[in-house]
Amino acid sequence: MMSQLADVTDLATECHAIAERAKAASRKLALAPGSVKNDWLMKASVSLMDRSAEILAENAKDVAAAPSFGLNPAAIDRLTLTPKRLADIARSLVDVAGLPDPVGEVIAASKRPNGLDVSQIRVPLGVIFMIYESRPNVTVDAAALCVKSGNAAILRGGKEALHSNLALYRVLADELEGCGLPPHAVQLVATTDRAAVGYLLALPQFIDLAIPRGGESLIRRVVADATMPVLKHYTGNCHVYVDASADEAMAIDIIINSKVQRPGVCNAAETLLVHSYAASRFLPKAAAMLRGLGVELRGDEQSRVLVPEMEPLQPKDWDTEFLDKILAVGVVDSLDSAIEHIARHSSGHTEVIVTSELSSARKFVASVDSSAVIVNASTRFNDGGELGLGAEIGISTDKYHARGPCGLRELTTTKWVVYGDGQIRI
Amino acid sequence: MMSQLADVTDLATECHAIAERAKAASRKLALAPGSVKNDWLMKASVSLMDRSAEILAENAKDVAAAPSFGLNPAAIDRLTLTPKRLADIARSLVDVAGLPDPVGEVIAASKRPNGLDVSQIRVPLGVIFMIYESRPNVTVDAAALCVKSGNAAILRGGKEALHSNLALYRVLADELEGCGLPPHAVQLVATTDRAAVGYLLALPQFIDLAIPRGGESLIRRVVADATMPVLKHYTGNCHVYVDASADEAMAIDIIINSKVQRPGVCNAAETLLVHSYAASRFLPKAAAMLRGLGVELRGDEQSRVLVPEMEPLQPKDWDTEFLDKILAVGVVDSLDSAIEHIARHSSGHTEVIVTSELSSARKFVASVDSSAVIVNASTRFNDGGELGLGAEIGISTDKYHARGPCGLRELTTTKWVVYGDGQIRI
Repeated sequence: MMSQLADVTDLATECHAIAERAKAASRKLALAPGSVKNDWLMKASVSLMDRSAEILAENAKDVAAAPSFGLNPAAIDRLTLTPKRLADIARSLVDVAGLPDPVGEVIAASKRPNGLDVSQIRVPLGVIFMIYESRPNVTVDAAALCVKSGNAAILRGGKEALHSNLALYRVLADELEGCGLPPHAVQLVATTDRAAVGYLLALPQFIDLAIPRGGESLIRRVVADATMPVLKHYTGNCHVYVDASADEAMAIDIIINSKVQRPGVCNAAETLLVHSYAASRFLPKAAAMLRGLGVELRGDEQSRVLVPEMEPLQPKDWDTEFLDKILAVGVVDSLDSAIEHIARHSSGHTEVIVTSELSSARKFVASVDSSAVIVNASTRFNDGGELGLGAEIGISTDKYHARGPCGLRELTTTKWVVYGDGQIRI
Repeated sequence: MMSQLADVTDLATECHAIAERAKAASRKLALAPGSVKNDWLMKASVSLMDRSAEILAENAKDVAAAPSFGLNPAAIDRLTLTPKRLADIARSLVDVAGLPDPVGEVIAASKRPNGLDVSQIRVPLGVIFMIYESRPNVTVDAAALCVKSGNAAILRGGKEALHSNLALYRVLADELEGCGLPPHAVQLVATTDRAAVGYLLALPQFIDLAIPRGGESLIRRVVADATMPVLKHYTGNCHVYVDASADEAMAIDIIINSKVQRPGVCNAAETLLVHSYAASRFLPKAAAMLRGLGVELRGDEQSRVLVPEMEPLQPKDWDTEFLDKILAVGVVDSLDSAIEHIARHSSGHTEVIVTSELSSARKFVASVDSSAVIVNASTRFNDGGELGLGAEIGISTDKYHARGPCGLRELTTTKWVVYGDGQIRI
């Protein structure tokens, strides 16, 4: 943890020191047995509950100051910790302890014709730098996933959550040494000076991966400055395509859940495409339901013939992640047209087809190039917990390294290990 | 393939067109069954032999012009195709056809408690841009590995091999359509204007991965300009550590093979570290053998006490990839010191321990953070063929995505596929 800093030179120096300490800690952490890491997770979980009064008091300071940072009620709600929310955070550490340790997993192994025993094993990446916005639970989640996967964590939360993050961090850090883990396995960058992020992103010799969690502008800023890989998605412009053969009631349930359950998240739907054969029956019903739930519909020409009450769609709406109760609506003449539309406009996050035709399902799954392609279920299932990863540190729409929800395994790399008895190459 | 171009605007436009065509081709190629891709590999292999006269004639033009490009005899040898070498190239296509198709491999699959069938499958990356130097076999190898893994390839070889690359490319491309593969699945950038590389590296919307193959300066140029991920290693500063308990004869065989068998490649050894207990017996013998084979030894102070004939080592020698018959030599006081030395100076490529102590082997393997860590065998085994990948497109020392030799699997990414029957999230 860094103290409040006097000037820019000190800040650059201090960031360098944080990153260097993290790299040194990561080398020890990489050797820590799973039982030691789990011990820390369990002790930290207990300690979060034991010290809840301290944490809630610090959180109250952030909540009191939130209006001065211009936070709206929804953001203040996300910032606020309650005994129930703190208990959930503490329990999440127990959940992570229960997940299999990815470090040391043997991915491939063989004996070569010359007698060499060759294996490819999973090892930690090293040092992970998390940059995130207001929700203080990320401090705990990120620390837990990084340490469990053998990586040192450098945490940098938002200024509006600084007291909360510091309080949570102190609890986590206080348990490290007692468990035999390096004290700098988790560090919090406690200055509110934004320049610290830039200094840290310029240290690829120490930091192996940056993970921004927050709005698109934060992510773009991190990508622009980072000199190491970045695990990220910019936007989730997710599509639901209702095929000619779709079950109508199922399609309505799925589009409503995809759009309305949590409109502000990356795996919410932003565009509804309907096959022209299904549109005349389906669209008026779906539109009435969606509008009844407060969703603003923006329709293309063909769909507005069927539902004239829809707002006229602007071309940019096809490429917009509304993060709100707004839905772009279009009619397509074929499955191929839907696939083409998605290829042109999708951000590669999550796409859904509702269909009863096996051939349509198979073609959609094969042709759509997104991190998750879903048949007859909500877009909202593209999530680490829902897909069975146990926990996620973020969702990647990149293709290099990991794609989709990223759990413990995605925070590792591999190492080839070879045992011989004097073999040379001929 | 692009024609010779008139001016810069045309070149930028043409590069954009090449990349856009590659992306369109990649969408079709991703759906191609393994049998179709193998059919192309087999037909191209036969055609390379059938059209060998044409290929060798074009190669002869490059070889004749080679001195005017300043190529030394070793480089001219690498550029030269012979009937035997062409047969080897043709056979490599058959080998690639025999490898398992990575596309569609199911990596993980489960039924979730809500009945969703969830799987994570392997899919191609999309479009791969290869930038390489004089060896024309890379044209064929890269095209084969890209197409087999379902990726469209854009190939950019060196100007000194342009006629050879064009001839090889024509044979490969002529077989695409007949097999039902998109004609732009493989394209060659046939201008000698270096600016083309820069234009292509600025098109991440079409190109998913850049792979430079060649000297460090080429690789650094590509990394500096690339806006997409780059599969690479800068250098192979590989270490052989001879432990106190090492079998002396084995250690001598291993260091000689690691240093001398092919001094100019990335997995050759550049530094020899010897435990002080072993040094007084081992170093004089090893030094005599190595010097007898023409290796220049550069020793630190402690090692020069034992072998005064060694050149005095300069600090920068610890960080130098000599790519030549030169070896840095040091004496260390412990296994831990060797591990520390390697952590400070290694490029993360390949490190070897020679030891008879199980505990030393295990500690070295666990603590050394390189793409391959080898016990009692030559550094030269860090190679896709030797580790059992069947073929390699390059070696990565990065930790993100793939590390070590990269074969077909490393040219893929993953996609989550979910089948439901109307599930929504609650």
